[in-house]
Amino acid sequence: MSEGRLGLTDKDSTPVKSQLQWGGRFDAGPAEVMQAINASISFDSKLWRQDIAGSQAHAAMLAKQGIITHEDQAAIKAGLEAIAAEIEAGTFEFSEALEDIHTNIEVRLTARIGEAARRLHTARSRNDQVATDFRLWVRDAIDGILAQIHSLMKALAERAAEHATTVMAGFTHLQTAQPVTFGHHLLAYVEMLARDAGRLQDARTRLNECPLGAAALAGTSFPIDRHATAEALGFARPTANSLDSVSDRDFALEFLSTLSICAMHLSRFSEEIIIWCSSPYKLIELSDAFTTGSSIMPQKRNPDAAELAKAKTGRIFGALTGLLTVMKGLPMAYAKDMQEDKEPVFDAVAAISLSLAAMEGMVRDMKANKDRMEALAGSGFSTATDLADWLVRVLKMPFRDAHHTTGQLVRLAEDKNSDLSHLTLADMQSVEPRITNEIFEVLTVQASVASRVSYGGTAPANVAKQAALWLERLA
Amino acid sequence: MSEGRLGLTDKDSTPVKSQLQWGGRFDAGPAEVMQAINASISFDSKLWRQDIAGSQAHAAMLAKQGIITHEDQAAIKAGLEAIAAEIEAGTFEFSEALEDIHTNIEVRLTARIGEAARRLHTARSRNDQVATDFRLWVRDAIDGILAQIHSLMKALAERAAEHATTVMAGFTHLQTAQPVTFGHHLLAYVEMLARDAGRLQDARTRLNECPLGAAALAGTSFPIDRHATAEALGFARPTANSLDSVSDRDFALEFLSTLSICAMHLSRFSEEIIIWCSSPYKLIELSDAFTTGSSIMPQKRNPDAAELAKAKTGRIFGALTGLLTVMKGLPMAYAKDMQEDKEPVFDAVAAISLSLAAMEGMVRDMKANKDRMEALAGSGFSTATDLADWLVRVLKMPFRDAHHTTGQLVRLAEDKNSDLSHLTLADMQSVEPRITNEIFEVLTVQASVASRVSYGGTAPANVAKQAALWLERLA
Amino acid sequence: MSEGRLGLTDKDSTPVKSQLQWGGRFDAGPAEVMQAINASISFDSKLWRQDIAGSQAHAAMLAKQGIITHEDQAAIKAGLEAIAAEIEAGTFEFSEALEDIHTNIEVRLTARIGEAARRLHTARSRNDQVATDFRLWVRDAIDGILAQIHSLMKALAERAAEHATTVMAGFTHLQTAQPVTFGHHLLAYVEMLARDAGRLQDARTRLNECPLGAAALAGTSFPIDRHATAEALGFARPTANSLDSVSDRDFALEFLSTLSICAMHLSRFSEEIIIWCSSPYKLIELSDAFTTGSSIMPQKRNPDAAELAKAKTGRIFGALTGLLTVMKGLPMAYAKDMQEDKEPVFDAVAAISLSLAAMEGMVRDMKANKDRMEALAGSGFSTATDLADWLVRVLKMPFRDAHHTTGQLVRLAEDKNSDLSHLTLADMQSVEPRITNEIFEVLTVQASVASRVSYGGTAPANVAKQAALWLERLA
Amino acid sequence: MSEGRLGLTDKDSTPVKSQLQWGGRFDAGPAEVMQAINASISFDSKLWRQDIAGSQAHAAMLAKQGIITHEDQAAIKAGLEAIAAEIEAGTFEFSEALEDIHTNIEVRLTARIGEAARRLHTARSRNDQVATDFRLWVRDAIDGILAQIHSLMKALAERAAEHATTVMAGFTHLQTAQPVTFGHHLLAYVEMLARDAGRLQDARTRLNECPLGAAALAGTSFPIDRHATAEALGFARPTANSLDSVSDRDFALEFLSTLSICAMHLSRFSEEIIIWCSSPYKLIELSDAFTTGSSIMPQKRNPDAAELAKAKTGRIFGALTGLLTVMKGLPMAYAKDMQEDKEPVFDAVAAISLSLAAMEGMVRDMKANKDRMEALAGSGFSTATDLADWLVRVLKMPFRDAHHTTGQLVRLAEDKNSDLSHLTLADMQSVEPRITNEIFEVLTVQASVASRVSYGGTAPANVAKQAALWLERLA
Repeated sequence: MSEGRLGLTDKDSTPVKSQLQWGGRFDAGPAEVMQAINASISFDSKLWRQDIAGSQAHAAMLAKQGIITHEDQAAIKAGLEAIAAEIEAGTFEFSEALEDIHTNIEVRLTARIGEAARRLHTARSRNDQVATDFRLWVRDAIDGILAQIHSLMKALAERAAEHATTVMAGFTHLQTAQPVTFGHHLLAYVEMLARDAGRLQDARTRLNECPLGAAALAGTSFPIDRHATAEALGFARPTANSLDSVSDRDFALEFLSTLSICAMHLSRFSEEIIIWCSSPYKLIELSDAFTTGSSIMPQKRNPDAAELAKAKTGRIFGALTGLLTVMKGLPMAYAKDMQEDKEPVFDAVAAISLSLAAMEGMVRDMKANKDRMEALAGSGFSTATDLADWLVRVLKMPFRDAHHTTGQLVRLAEDKNSDLSHLTLADMQSVEPRITNEIFEVLTVQASVASRVSYGGTAPANVAKQAALWLERLA
Repeated sequence: MSEGRLGLTDKDSTPVKSQLQWGGRFDAGPAEVMQAINASISFDSKLWRQDIAGSQAHAAMLAKQGIITHEDQAAIKAGLEAIAAEIEAGTFEFSEALEDIHTNIEVRLTARIGEAARRLHTARSRNDQVATDFRLWVRDAIDGILAQIHSLMKALAERAAEHATTVMAGFTHLQTAQPVTFGHHLLAYVEMLARDAGRLQDARTRLNECPLGAAALAGTSFPIDRHATAEALGFARPTANSLDSVSDRDFALEFLSTLSICAMHLSRFSEEIIIWCSSPYKLIELSDAFTTGSSIMPQKRNPDAAELAKAKTGRIFGALTGLLTVMKGLPMAYAKDMQEDKEPVFDAVAAISLSLAAMEGMVRDMKANKDRMEALAGSGFSTATDLADWLVRVLKMPFRDAHHTTGQLVRLAEDKNSDLSHLTLADMQSVEPRITNEIFEVLTVQASVASRVSYGGTAPANVAKQAALWLERLA
Repeated sequence: MSEGRLGLTDKDSTPVKSQLQWGGRFDAGPAEVMQAINASISFDSKLWRQDIAGSQAHAAMLAKQGIITHEDQAAIKAGLEAIAAEIEAGTFEFSEALEDIHTNIEVRLTARIGEAARRLHTARSRNDQVATDFRLWVRDAIDGILAQIHSLMKALAERAAEHATTVMAGFTHLQTAQPVTFGHHLLAYVEMLARDAGRLQDARTRLNECPLGAAALAGTSFPIDRHATAEALGFARPTANSLDSVSDRDFALEFLSTLSICAMHLSRFSEEIIIWCSSPYKLIELSDAFTTGSSIMPQKRNPDAAELAKAKTGRIFGALTGLLTVMKGLPMAYAKDMQEDKEPVFDAVAAISLSLAAMEGMVRDMKANKDRMEALAGSGFSTATDLADWLVRVLKMPFRDAHHTTGQLVRLAEDKNSDLSHLTLADMQSVEPRITNEIFEVLTVQASVASRVSYGGTAPANVAKQAALWLERLA
Repeated sequence: MSEGRLGLTDKDSTPVKSQLQWGGRFDAGPAEVMQAINASISFDSKLWRQDIAGSQAHAAMLAKQGIITHEDQAAIKAGLEAIAAEIEAGTFEFSEALEDIHTNIEVRLTARIGEAARRLHTARSRNDQVATDFRLWVRDAIDGILAQIHSLMKALAERAAEHATTVMAGFTHLQTAQPVTFGHHLLAYVEMLARDAGRLQDARTRLNECPLGAAALAGTSFPIDRHATAEALGFARPTANSLDSVSDRDFALEFLSTLSICAMHLSRFSEEIIIWCSSPYKLIELSDAFTTGSSIMPQKRNPDAAELAKAKTGRIFGALTGLLTVMKGLPMAYAKDMQEDKEPVFDAVAAISLSLAAMEGMVRDMKANKDRMEALAGSGFSTATDLADWLVRVLKMPFRDAHHTTGQLVRLAEDKNSDLSHLTLADMQSVEPRITNEIFEVLTVQASVASRVSYGGTAPANVAKQAALWLERLA
């Protein structure tokens, strides 16, 4: 397609072209291409706090071990603090020519404090430095995501407590199956999120070892104290093998797979919200805060937030697939391939964080249409299982026979255009003579849910207790 | 982990925190969360040219069909041109509150030209508008990538012509197998890239239908001329079903899967470059332009560009996985989930474009160590197959018997610490009395490659011819 | 967990254990492990026809070129035919010790015909043989899938013709948006499947080159005629580069990505079927043939076939991810990694074939609940857009103003608990005095769909014409 | 392609056709299609032991709680034991018409013991039954994989102890960087596998909750004791929410993501083995047990086992992608989509088990070429870092200055075609006058590795200690 077709002049550097600045002919020159593919400062500047924290810990240890002087350390400390202040103030100029955050900061430090800065890189290398920085960042991210998950769990448990007795249709295959309570449904997501939190905690424990001091790949001959730097940075211990220390990105992969499962959970709830909001269901309503309307169809509230929370799953799965692909078949130790580890993690964290926030917002915002919920819960002979259970419990019929007899009764009700609770006792007895009036007590949706008192069952008493238990744990 | 551990003050809004602005407590308020998850202007501003081009074509058609006046169209045309100029000049202010590129431009147009702007959205909707814009962007991207692929193919064919007679070891299982020519090896990548180009062409042909005029989902009652807008925008025809028009993202998926296969090809060549550059191989050398050195080990040239080109494969596979995930199970017609279609495509295009540029740079830059190539080509009894073929051809032995006899000869050579070409005729005849001196003619690497004249074989004459053919096609 | 816990005796070799026959201690011995990981006969026996066909073509060419005698070729031909008969009759014994289909057949051929069999492998290798076999298999599979897609398209077009005038709600965001026809909705899937078919055709054209004669990797010195074998096997031409010929699995990847997009389409329709079958919607009914019931809840028809067709998407995406992973970073030429190419393709083909069959079955089986469809189509002020369009068309209001006025009218109707078509003219004029009685003609769902006559729009006349066109193309 | 092309008669039902039995025309009939897509017995028969164990525990609990009689339980117990014996003996006939393992066993039990069997399904459903069975299977699989991982770790630690002093080149970017010990390199994989084992342990702990008694989705009104069945089956506790119990497949996803990371580790080591075996490297040798030779090139030992172990990564990543896709966006509670959970898990378990076995075999089998390792370790100025460290340590130069001085010395050596240790003291002093003879003590590869005594460093003493520690832990 000629650009002219788009009515634009030829000289324009289109957004596409700027994506494709190398395109067509290789006239950009090797230097620009290499800088563009090689530099990481555009994304690893996110690691500046971690990089400075790591350098502070390293310098303090070098001084304690007599590898540098205390004067040098003091200069380094002050210099790094000043640089941190510059970055926060937005006055630090990141340079692409200096490639990465480590060099940007070291060069600035040298400009500020001179020779002492040239002693900082003793007994470490870029390889252990970046591994340390990225672990610190992921650890912070885990803590942030954990806080959001707990907050969402709390919102769910609060709404579950509120709706411990609200009856709704339980679905299997998206077909009405048995009555449950809305609170019970919400608590199912608390369980899922609790597992997500558990996985994140486990991942955090496993990542919490410090690679600093592994140096390029072989360790160092300087008398460093890796336990000291590990402790200073809040790590449980130093990593045990220097080759592994600089080659390992398990912590990022485990984190991404944990986020993938969590995103999948959010996608399931999002899909339910979308279906529940659709006009034939109308089980819940979301306010304008989480929907987009239409000035033309004021009743239309598109559940955009739920759709986007569901769709974000794609990029999180994609980030996991991407990093697994990068790491596949990579010989030890460090290879530049591993520079592709950060962006998928940053992107996945932004996506899950936004999805969790939107989901908590929707949970707090959603209004249950109790009448509609109860009406749907009672449709479709949803208490047929209760009837069968009565036959087993009271008449001692084998379950498979009770199942069969119930089927006959449901067909009778269907023929009479009735529901089960409106059949007469005579109708009932025409199928099974031993049935008594007592049976009608189990055929309401309220009786049905009230009876499900088995551990983990949907009985309102169970739900209230479980919600309270979660609120206590999350307090 | 307490922030204090990192030696930073509590008030700091860390990079992690800014990723997680919703974190911990849901105190950002629903409005900010919804805006953050819902707005797309941060990435769809890339579509500004396409959006303006689409509006120009739409307005021209509306005027031609008498749906708006020619005066209105003239005002719209001038207004959009002015906006294009503003955006190019960098003076246009994109607003997140206005959500997307379409609204940003329409609101600006209304500010500039008033009522005529309010007539522009007649007979179209946001849904067909974004589908049109994104197709135009992808079509441009395909054209750009195709140009880069052709440029890389040309570089490979030129180097292949140069090395039509350069003998190197052909590997299977990364074990030396038979001699081939370096030119032949390079031409294998030309074949792969030619298939990539074919796939992109096919994808381009398939996407080249115009969804504009599908309106929200049902078509429109205005007497529009969809063939006219399609033609104005360079499309072959309008799309045939309005529901499909706004729900379809096949063109993005087909593009991403095509890029994935192309990235895989680049990853294979990258891996070869990395191995060939490693010190035990040393088959090629890359200049400083595509390696990073070390002031301490000047001989060390880390093939960073090749490693990164290989690693970029991860994000391209990830983009494909991500968008497939988004589209899975999505009911028609438009759903907000589909807003997650653009970023993976933008990211994959940037990645493949950079990888192609880096690869072309390396191809043009690499220096073949011919002596090392030839030495390795001749090691490991690499002409054993030639010997076996001679036994079949000249002595009329069944191939399986020739194979067996050759094995005996190789073992004899091994025992004598010789290679095959340095066995004596007597040695040869001790295994197979019918062997003549003629056999020594087939045991050199030059004879070996020269003999492989079958169609597609590695004989220098073949390679020169094939390289010339490609250069002609690519001229 | 102790096995005792499961109430099973210790000596049992559980199914898990047999999966894990190497588990716990490495006592199986290297030989068994190597055979288990190396042998491919358990799955590549599927290629027996292709392998025999390839050998027949190769032998015929060798004889024609004078490389083997016509007597040998006749013996080979008869021997291979006899082996084909054995395999079909189920009397051929596949041996894992012989590793793969190629060796199984060659060893059997040697047993049957002796020395001639030992001449068959002249001028070819295992590498080009398996590449040829697998291409032939994939080509057959494409043809089979294409036939199924055409059959499903025909079923959809037939049902679309039947339902060209059946009005249903068109959804966006799973919210009722505008009326469409059921036939139009079905034809959207015909468009998607047509693109799938186009992709398969393109993939078939691209794969249709013959690698036979590439030999191990370098070509051969025998005077073979690769064009002859290519033609005999129905290929358009021989492949052009011997290294590429044995290293290329693009055809499998392109096939899998095409199947992934097709599976995504089926997953979208499946999800719609599931939602349409759910009790609050009840837009369609599926018979017992494609649902599973419950003897206890006779009204319950679980749409299992649709759920499984949707879920099969997972394994097809997985197959694509898997093979992309295998091929990433693989140096040329053949590597044993590539043996992992077949099972994902076989599995994906079985899955898509079954899904297409189930989908066609459901399309032919589904009964539209027309009354329910029409009722839902008319709800939610679904003709508000028609009203706005009338204001633009008749009163010449700018679209954005018409949009605003319509919003006011919808709010008025909402306040009066009315729908738009039951407002009085006075009501209408209280908002916009210029409205006339003519407006009521556009407010019915029938009028709405009838008006959408733009190309690709949902008007019944369009739908009938489009359905007829597809039935003609598919005849 | 006509079948005739393949020289085969038309009537043949080809392997492709049998994959595509529904193909072309939909003449198989709905019943066959539905049975084919719906039945799971072809793969879930693997769960027979788990299914019987679950039923035994359930029946014992029902009897204890007085829900069934002790006589019935005794009959059920004996019946199930007899069925277990039949299945083990291979005399049980699995029926596809009976769909799944649960029905196959229940129907057989009814045939054997009559009415008591019809009471077994009281207070449970297919949904909690399959969830229980599959958890038990995955738990067994985790135990099996853990045992294999421990066994591989032990093999690595043993070889590491053996090679604590064997010096080899440490690589970064596949370029020789610094000397390390072979034992150190092997121990890096022990660290990776230890993390894999930790992840599996965590996954096992998290899955070890019993869903039995959740019934269809709502719990049950029977007075069951879920803690009793949980304990009987070795679970830590029952699951806490019945809806979650039947909808949760986290345990399978967490297992697959853990296997994916483990497979990635194996792929890295496999790639190293392949490179180390390639002729220019020749760092190790594998015996015939794990390579395939060539009768024609006896020196050629293709590392097939390593290539396949690497390639198996693809199907494990694919299994994870596949199941994540299946679960995305699935409303609660059970949906038939979830039947697609088992095959990817079974396939991934078989793949990782085989890969672990092959890897252990290779680790035990591989022979280190110590001379070649040491020669390569000493090439490329690999001790330049040691020289720089000496300048810092002894001359108190800032590290960045030492780095610069070292660069000058290396260039000098390069110019003299010497390595660093063969420069004269005068040469050294021409660059830095303060250098003394002491420097030559740090320039050998042995001195280099010996000096890296920092925690986790490659010093032989460290390696020996670390290997011993692992062997103690794994004893």
